[in-house]
Amino acid sequence: MLFWFLHHAGILQRHASTMKAAYYDGSRSIRVGECTPRPPAAGEVQIEVAFCGVCGTDLHVFEGHMDGRVPVPHIMGHEMSGTIVDVGTCSNNESGVDVWEAGQRVVVRPIQSCGTCQACLRGHGHICQRLNFIGIDSPGAFQALWTVPAHTLHQLPAELSFEQAALIEPLAVACHDIRLAGLQPGEEAVVIGAGPIGTIVSLVARHAGAHVLVSEVNPFRVQFARDLGFDVVNPKEQDLVAAVDERTGGGGADVVFEVSGTQAGATVMTKLLRTRGRAVIVAIFAEAPKIDLFQLFLRELQLYGVRVYEHEDFERAIKLAQQGALPLEALITEHRGLDSLQGVFEEMQSGGEIMKVLIDTQG
Amino acid sequence: MLFWFLHHAGILQRHASTMKAAYYDGSRSIRVGECTPRPPAAGEVQIEVAFCGVCGTDLHVFEGHMDGRVPVPHIMGHEMSGTIVDVGTCSNNESGVDVWEAGQRVVVRPIQSCGTCQACLRGHGHICQRLNFIGIDSPGAFQALWTVPAHTLHQLPAELSFEQAALIEPLAVACHDIRLAGLQPGEEAVVIGAGPIGTIVSLVARHAGAHVLVSEVNPFRVQFARDLGFDVVNPKEQDLVAAVDERTGGGGADVVFEVSGTQAGATVMTKLLRTRGRAVIVAIFAEAPKIDLFQLFLRELQLYGVRVYEHEDFERAIKLAQQGALPLEALITEHRGLDSLQGVFEEMQSGGEIMKVLIDTQG
Repeated sequence: MLFWFLHHAGILQRHASTMKAAYYDGSRSIRVGECTPRPPAAGEVQIEVAFCGVCGTDLHVFEGHMDGRVPVPHIMGHEMSGTIVDVGTCSNNESGVDVWEAGQRVVVRPIQSCGTCQACLRGHGHICQRLNFIGIDSPGAFQALWTVPAHTLHQLPAELSFEQAALIEPLAVACHDIRLAGLQPGEEAVVIGAGPIGTIVSLVARHAGAHVLVSEVNPFRVQFARDLGFDVVNPKEQDLVAAVDERTGGGGADVVFEVSGTQAGATVMTKLLRTRGRAVIVAIFAEAPKIDLFQLFLRELQLYGVRVYEHEDFERAIKLAQQGALPLEALITEHRGLDSLQGVFEEMQSGGEIMKVLIDTQG
Repeated sequence: MLFWFLHHAGILQRHASTMKAAYYDGSRSIRVGECTPRPPAAGEVQIEVAFCGVCGTDLHVFEGHMDGRVPVPHIMGHEMSGTIVDVGTCSNNESGVDVWEAGQRVVVRPIQSCGTCQACLRGHGHICQRLNFIGIDSPGAFQALWTVPAHTLHQLPAELSFEQAALIEPLAVACHDIRLAGLQPGEEAVVIGAGPIGTIVSLVARHAGAHVLVSEVNPFRVQFARDLGFDVVNPKEQDLVAAVDERTGGGGADVVFEVSGTQAGATVMTKLLRTRGRAVIVAIFAEAPKIDLFQLFLRELQLYGVRVYEHEDFERAIKLAQQGALPLEALITEHRGLDSLQGVFEEMQSGGEIMKVLIDTQG
């Protein structure tokens, strides 16, 4: 808070000489240290980060699963909200930097595409073959001041608090998933796995008019989903296939969102679907699970891989949040400071009773 | 041939008292025996079968993989052509029997749906939850006279020979697969597995304007596909992923048709596709293979299960064959009599140098 106070009081230089950042040092170790803020280059802005949520992907990094991809030491964090404090020069007409100014409240869509690979040329820049996912492939938002390309910014409406806005990024994931699923009002949807992303997918699916059944084995998350008004099956206690059959008169679900990343989820998903039903693979499967392709054949099922989001998904997420359509704040179970990040990861690993944790990067 | 001659000479009754049929007796055993033809009931027609092709699914039955589904003794066969010899009474306006008469040349779409299950109510009668696939779930066409519901018939144009027409059924499979794949002119397609179905899928894909690369390990089939003018990779000798990368400038294929039913095919298919590419699961996978869902996620791939055909696919197949657009007769490597069926299955099992075998059910 001292930095925040001094900064706003004009006591510090605009470009503070040092600030705090949380570093992943490899081997399940987070170190909070001093860091020199990087001034915005041409086409960039510098943001004073308000809050940054801790994502399941960050946990993957912490656990070392992405050591081949992530530089060490590395600053993670990509689910953030904040205020522009500095704007770089306009490098060219396409940088978009000239529409931004200090004081604007923003979120960042942490996607930097190469613009020249075949994915980009097809208009799939969000899954660019040389994607720089900011916060994984380059420094993220677990620092007080964060410098990013101006084209990644989305402006926040005044109605949204910084806490709510820190959930825009995972909400955009869900908006992307629901859009690519082609989810229609009245459809029967099953969401397998009710962690933060699964829960937000359930909320967006319900808001889109689907009838949602949640499958979850963790008792805390079961109760959390029930408290949000969802029908929940714990497949360790109840037959999920029978439950879906009962809800659908034996026809099967229209859409299944696989958000558990488990073999059990991958096995059951093809059993839950109606003829020509769609399974949407939201989770990251580190190992290839067995998939019953005979079920795919038998009922002409479709499996869709989905990843991150596109510009329109961020805009949709901001609009949904602005409308107050979803109980976003209910998902925030913890506010912590940067110094607590190591403990947060350990709590996530041990299946602690937390949903979304926001890190106050100034705290 | 005796039956055929006597029948056409009017020496036999229209409903012959007995005829030959090939029976699957279980345990890899086919017996040719006498059979009493079933006169057509209301809404049915009786067909004098000209030719009936031997399908990979028949081989599955022969090998005992479908003993839980197939009654024993059982008459297989569903890739046929023939002539109507008798027409049952008109049971109701929907039977469609009144538009047919003796002497008409036909093929049968061997699909009998219940009309009341949730798949049927959604318009997916071809994958009815209580499907009677005629030739598997009820008697098929490896007999001289075959009685089927009138609604299964498609009339043959005069240009088509009975030999060509016996390929309409597998051609309809390919038309269905290409349609559900949404294959567009100019797209890059890879067909994994060049047996009869894979080869027909390749032909239809090429006719649809796609650039087709065939992957096949069997030397006879490799040469067969090359003789049809296809580029072929034998993945035991050449890196298929590298070959596709080279053809597509590193972008990947638009569509992969998995027709091999092998783990190797299932493993490689996700590596061959461009961002948002489609893998079409044509093969029947008796066991669930491992599927790299991380690749699905990474490039937002789609997997489509496809099965049999719908009315429009049969009509499309007949039109394609009528136009002479495809070298169908080149696929027919053998003509045999019913007595040879046991030997044909054994040859198929041992990977003999055959593509499509037609059985002359009168011979």
